[in-house]
Amino acid sequence: MFDEVGKLELKLPGTDSEYGIIAGSDLLARLGEWAGHCLGRPGGRVMVVSNPRVFGLYGEGAEESLRRAGFDVHVWLMRDGERYKDLRSYSRLLSRLGELTFTRTDAVVALGGGVVGDIAGFAAASFLRGIRFLQVPTTLLAMIDSSVGGKTGINLESGKNLVGAFHQPAGVLMDVSTLRTLPRREVVAGYCEAVKHAVLSGGSLFEETRSHLSVVDTSRFKRVFESPDLIADIAEFVLKQAAFKASVVIGDQTEDVSRTDFRSRKVLNLGHTLAHSLEKVTAYRYFRHGEAVGWGLRFAGELSKSLELIHSDELNLLNHVVQLVGELPDISKLDAESIVRSFASDKKNVTGKLQWVLLQGIGSPVIVASDQIPELSIRACLDQLIKRTS
Amino acid sequence: MFDEVGKLELKLPGTDSEYGIIAGSDLLARLGEWAGHCLGRPGGRVMVVSNPRVFGLYGEGAEESLRRAGFDVHVWLMRDGERYKDLRSYSRLLSRLGELTFTRTDAVVALGGGVVGDIAGFAAASFLRGIRFLQVPTTLLAMIDSSVGGKTGINLESGKNLVGAFHQPAGVLMDVSTLRTLPRREVVAGYCEAVKHAVLSGGSLFEETRSHLSVVDTSRFKRVFESPDLIADIAEFVLKQAAFKASVVIGDQTEDVSRTDFRSRKVLNLGHTLAHSLEKVTAYRYFRHGEAVGWGLRFAGELSKSLELIHSDELNLLNHVVQLVGELPDISKLDAESIVRSFASDKKNVTGKLQWVLLQGIGSPVIVASDQIPELSIRACLDQLIKRTS
Repeated sequence: MFDEVGKLELKLPGTDSEYGIIAGSDLLARLGEWAGHCLGRPGGRVMVVSNPRVFGLYGEGAEESLRRAGFDVHVWLMRDGERYKDLRSYSRLLSRLGELTFTRTDAVVALGGGVVGDIAGFAAASFLRGIRFLQVPTTLLAMIDSSVGGKTGINLESGKNLVGAFHQPAGVLMDVSTLRTLPRREVVAGYCEAVKHAVLSGGSLFEETRSHLSVVDTSRFKRVFESPDLIADIAEFVLKQAAFKASVVIGDQTEDVSRTDFRSRKVLNLGHTLAHSLEKVTAYRYFRHGEAVGWGLRFAGELSKSLELIHSDELNLLNHVVQLVGELPDISKLDAESIVRSFASDKKNVTGKLQWVLLQGIGSPVIVASDQIPELSIRACLDQLIKRTS
Repeated sequence: MFDEVGKLELKLPGTDSEYGIIAGSDLLARLGEWAGHCLGRPGGRVMVVSNPRVFGLYGEGAEESLRRAGFDVHVWLMRDGERYKDLRSYSRLLSRLGELTFTRTDAVVALGGGVVGDIAGFAAASFLRGIRFLQVPTTLLAMIDSSVGGKTGINLESGKNLVGAFHQPAGVLMDVSTLRTLPRREVVAGYCEAVKHAVLSGGSLFEETRSHLSVVDTSRFKRVFESPDLIADIAEFVLKQAAFKASVVIGDQTEDVSRTDFRSRKVLNLGHTLAHSLEKVTAYRYFRHGEAVGWGLRFAGELSKSLELIHSDELNLLNHVVQLVGELPDISKLDAESIVRSFASDKKNVTGKLQWVLLQGIGSPVIVASDQIPELSIRACLDQLIKRTS
């Protein structure tokens, strides 16, 4: 079944969890068949969680496929946007599952981007203390990043992703055809996270990401879908990216707070300390998360350079690949002071002290405690980054 | 450390989880010392979750002990009662933890009964995807039942405990001195769950529970605390009861839906199908949960008898021990019809079909699918139970 599409089988050590990721084009039409396969039996009830935009584009087909496979399909739509990834949306979804008396043999299907996946995943993780869920990411970011790894979460007023659970999906289906309708900024945001993976990994993933970005023009992304070869490339690309993410998280499923080695899950926070601050000081309304990560990568590079961790050739290479992704939102009007202040309250600050993920080179992340870095260096790098763009 | 008090060490198979339960008198004065021991280091921040009644009685001492041990202590009080174990209280507690920027090395301390333990436990399970928590149960029910096993949960409009997580505490401290102020109905409710354990276990736990209840008068429970011997008896009793609960849940930590064997965690639902219905038809305002379980145990006995599963001598023994616990709220005015109707929506109905836990004898629970039981038998047993009490 699905023998002709790209596949990745994940077995999580020390648990019974095992699931597959498939990637290809026009897969939504076979969603029902695949869901029956993942859930171990056809039929039963599923709650499709989505938002009006995505559901308007792909909902009908998805629903029809699920019904054809014998599922009793319910739909719950949430408003689009990171700011709706909150306790309120979560509570509403749970109440709906409760009203419908969903049971532990029923399942939740997340059809959408990271926000939908996070809400659906956390609701599935906690309803009846855990029911199964399937990830059907429809954004680049969700495909290569948020749908893999089992992290689910919602935001509090005081910060992003502060509440959630580790809950592995029963399967992930990546239909790259859905990327055709992805707005340009979402494309850029997704590729920024891809560059993050590439920089962390180094080696072949870095080379492939660089050459992929040389071919793909993110400002004319729709055109990619006129070429069957490029569509196949994208499917292969998202699967490789997801595989890298999986390789990191499998070794450190619950983000052991004491780990600081280069294979710790924490390295995935490369670029994220600045990214979270940029998002915070702009009230989460100016940047796509991935775009902020794009700036974060450049900042991590500059800071690594100022601490003489990374050679300038490698920094140039990093900057080059980030630039290949396309234009990022202007940061020249932002206030460096507020950004620095908000570093201290960064969510990654889970051990009570801030840790930076920096680079000793492409493919060589290193975790450095904040108190090892002069505040002046941080401030100088930030000023430089902001100034250079003004 | 704490060598002189009763102890139970729990190691959860297949996980790194390991924690200790201690039981004794006047232990709250040493809460800080014990918390430092459980959390692996003194100091750090703790959020004490409690309610005004319990905190008024024991909060000051607990707080002082924690501060003396070097903890930075915060307090969050919730309103008392099952109906506040909801998404709203949960959201508020999480927001508070977020505002205070609690980190993954900080901890939550539940000081109170099952409601406090459930809210605190689920918040700890989900804040930052899991921070540590300590259970300090102050009710009999919480000591012998809800503080053990790692189930945390909150209620939805549509039913009890529909949302939650499995999250093991880092330690459980049972100071039986706190039972001195326990209202009579709470005492009765707790002992009903103890009888449930006794009936499931059979053997020595059954004998010990019977003899314990012959000595203790639940309507004059305070008097027990005039005798050092009886206090020691209670500490030993709660620890044995907790050990039984632990022995069941350790074999089936996440309540595997496919298991129906007599060691499945599901057997702990003995008496609970009727109990949940009784609570539901009275809008959760008439019964203490344990009291409803008392009726549920009698009903499970009668139903087992009518299906010729259990011998009448054993049924008489069961009824005798339930009666030793003391007076349960009158059920003669309840409508049998509504009770039967609400069986179908029972929360334990996790697989989509209702399963009854019945008895083949004291110490021999058996799980029977609802479709194996004639509706007439269920109705007849219920009518009989209601009539007999009118």
